Amino acid sequence: MANAMFTGSFDPITIGHYDIIKRAAAVFTKVFVAVTVNSEKNYMFDDKNRFEMVKKACDNLENVEVIFCEGLVADLAREKKAVFVKGVRNSVDFAYEYEMASISKEISGVDTFLIPADPDLAYVSSTFVREMIKYGNDPERYIGRGKS
Amino acid sequence: MANAMFTGSFDPITIGHYDIIKRAAAVFTKVFVAVTVNSEKNYMFDDKNRFEMVKKACDNLENVEVIFCEGLVADLAREKKAVFVKGVRNSVDFAYEYEMASISKEISGVDTFLIPADPDLAYVSSTFVREMIKYGNDPERYIGRGKS
Amino acid sequence: MANAMFTGSFDPITIGHYDIIKRAAAVFTKVFVAVTVNSEKNYMFDDKNRFEMVKKACDNLENVEVIFCEGLVADLAREKKAVFVKGVRNSVDFAYEYEMASISKEISGVDTFLIPADPDLAYVSSTFVREMIKYGNDPERYIGRGKS
Amino acid sequence: MANAMFTGSFDPITIGHYDIIKRAAAVFTKVFVAVTVNSEKNYMFDDKNRFEMVKKACDNLENVEVIFCEGLVADLAREKKAVFVKGVRNSVDFAYEYEMASISKEISGVDTFLIPADPDLAYVSSTFVREMIKYGNDPERYIGRGKS
Amino acid sequence: MANAMFTGSFDPITIGHYDIIKRAAAVFTKVFVAVTVNSEKNYMFDDKNRFEMVKKACDNLENVEVIFCEGLVADLAREKKAVFVKGVRNSVDFAYEYEMASISKEISGVDTFLIPADPDLAYVSSTFVREMIKYGNDPERYIGRGKS
Amino acid sequence: MANAMFTGSFDPITIGHYDIIKRAAAVFTKVFVAVTVNSEKNYMFDDKNRFEMVKKACDNLENVEVIFCEGLVADLAREKKAVFVKGVRNSVDFAYEYEMASISKEISGVDTFLIPADPDLAYVSSTFVREMIKYGNDPERYIGRGKS
Repeated sequence: MANAMFTGSFDPITIGHYDIIKRAAAVFTKVFVAVTVNSEKNYMFDDKNRFEMVKKACDNLENVEVIFCEGLVADLAREKKAVFVKGVRNSVDFAYEYEMASISKEISGVDTFLIPADPDLAYVSSTFVREMIKYGNDPERYIGRGKS
Repeated sequence: MANAMFTGSFDPITIGHYDIIKRAAAVFTKVFVAVTVNSEKNYMFDDKNRFEMVKKACDNLENVEVIFCEGLVADLAREKKAVFVKGVRNSVDFAYEYEMASISKEISGVDTFLIPADPDLAYVSSTFVREMIKYGNDPERYIGRGKS
Repeated sequence: MANAMFTGSFDPITIGHYDIIKRAAAVFTKVFVAVTVNSEKNYMFDDKNRFEMVKKACDNLENVEVIFCEGLVADLAREKKAVFVKGVRNSVDFAYEYEMASISKEISGVDTFLIPADPDLAYVSSTFVREMIKYGNDPERYIGRGKS
Repeated sequence: MANAMFTGSFDPITIGHYDIIKRAAAVFTKVFVAVTVNSEKNYMFDDKNRFEMVKKACDNLENVEVIFCEGLVADLAREKKAVFVKGVRNSVDFAYEYEMASISKEISGVDTFLIPADPDLAYVSSTFVREMIKYGNDPERYIGRGKS
Repeated sequence: MANAMFTGSFDPITIGHYDIIKRAAAVFTKVFVAVTVNSEKNYMFDDKNRFEMVKKACDNLENVEVIFCEGLVADLAREKKAVFVKGVRNSVDFAYEYEMASISKEISGVDTFLIPADPDLAYVSSTFVREMIKYGNDPERYIGRGKS
Repeated sequence: MANAMFTGSFDPITIGHYDIIKRAAAVFTKVFVAVTVNSEKNYMFDDKNRFEMVKKACDNLENVEVIFCEGLVADLAREKKAVFVKGVRNSVDFAYEYEMASISKEISGVDTFLIPADPDLAYVSSTFVREMIKYGNDPERYIGRGKS
């Protein structure tokens, strides 16, 4: 009945991201995963790489479509007739997403649904994974992928 | 594709409740609004009254069904193949709903989606409306109803 | 230029209450301290006692007037042309007062100013003082009073 | 009876800022709006521009004076015999301002009053307005001004 | 080198409680688990039962001693030369324990250490277990015990 | 019975840091204070200076050892058979440390104990001290040291 959009830089996609996508895909007709591109940002993984990792992770989720987003995410969500879904891990995340939800509603009329993070995965962020890599640890078990 | 369940005592239903129901109804195939019944609680409005007010409020939302819930709400949600939707107004609400979401997942496998309250309505609660009534104020503008 | 109103049951008034009153009195033309009366509540100190303790505590603050409040505090604030001042000690207090501020604005058009509690006094509440008394401790040093 | 000071970079002034200034002006004898200048910062609007926008916005508020601040704001507040007023939008803002209030009290003896943001405006920040501009949207309705 | 005290009504002890006790026992010389007794409270499990369940749960932890507490817990902690350990699950818990820590320090000079709850167990509380029982569910897997 | 590790850049060490170290030293067999070194960071005080200030501050605490940390702090903690101790000042700090605690447990099996900041010192941070210095104020009373 309705579509959802999940956005992020996915640098790289984590098992936390994947969990949110899977739970959204169980409920929404279609879930668009929008990989944001920002020329001012220094990514660890380049655009193509980030996109491919997300695509591979979501391979087993039939109603998920991975796309790039170079403009305003709220415009893209409106175009796709999608509401935003966001993972929320704690009260600081919540304060931020509550403000973002108001902004999206205001500038594009796009609604936002918040998905409480699986407590077991709440510490896994892209920043955490990049730190693992910098210190020479194998990040495999934290990288988002299907069948997890 | 999926159903949602929104539960509460609705003593009485407010414009804040109605806003959450309407936003859920725009996204989910069917929204069950479950009016909880608890013989140990002293309601201002009796069971029948609470139910009828919710029903009247949701009259204009085609895919909303109002039902009673006397047992464990998580069991009812599983039976209706629904995820929970909850309105969240601030970080204290969030901490509570985050815990409740884990409990529902644990005991019934039911997922939870959080809907950030419209900031403009965030102060309107059933408690607030009952206070209005106690002090002799007309509560009409805070009572949930369609067309709002 | 403007008046303020500080409300509470003051059962009993604490050094934390007194600190807020003193800081408000340094800024506002007049500060009304409204001692709420509620026949459904079981106070440790009766109405007269609570009132007298507040009065004695504020004796040295010239622009403070202690009054009783039996109705809706927002109505009284409007009558006195006062804004509310509230002490806030932590993020949970804040969430509560943020909601209360919206309610006061909505039902009576009364604005609210929040005064961050002195960290050194943030643990002192009337509940704490009553516990002290129950366990036989001398509460003197926590009771609000002038010259502190 | 007392003065207040409201500080910020106002890059640019928003309707949220204006709401706080107006509410402070209704209560304090005089409100100083201090436009901070920091040579290490990259502003979107230059010093003169930011100052002029604030001045224009506050034109209709008789007891508001707009000034520059290049040093420590707490020193300026003490010089103007003013307490700080801050807008607070959520619990994360609160945690920050609670700490800042302690610092101001400690280093300059200046007290702080917090004004809860109008929930309807809580998402409007200078950052938000600058993003609007970057993406080619007209920011007019978010820019602070009198008569709003 | 130092002792710790962990207090609660343990009505009943949960796997969350047990996790905190075990982690404290790994660090402190001796951990006193104080089962509070309060004649004004309606426990689901009586004093003896609550005590025995805690004792059985901690059987395999050599440096843990289970005791009753009928007076002020801070007095008992001082007598046992112990600091308090508390489990903290979220920001609302934290605000509460931060205040309690100040009170303990103030009235008895007893320090407090906070142990962040295992996220996986953060939803398990005695209230939750009692609800399980009321609705006829088997609570066994949530009851605290050794070897978990 | 157990060791603790307290890490930070200590640029410079404050009376808030010292308070946490002293309280940890009263409880743990040995407290390692690990001064982190990061070649990408611009410190106000160089490595040697930061180390010496910490060492001097902790001079009177017999069971405290000051060390450098150039790698992953969790690895160093495991090597020293220490749990982490962290000072926590408010709910935003808590959300951050709760996440960090999960990460440390996950990647190195190192547990974390949180010490609630003395409310009286909660505003004192290294950032605050550096600001004091930048504006020409004497920072002496905020610098961590023994006998305080």
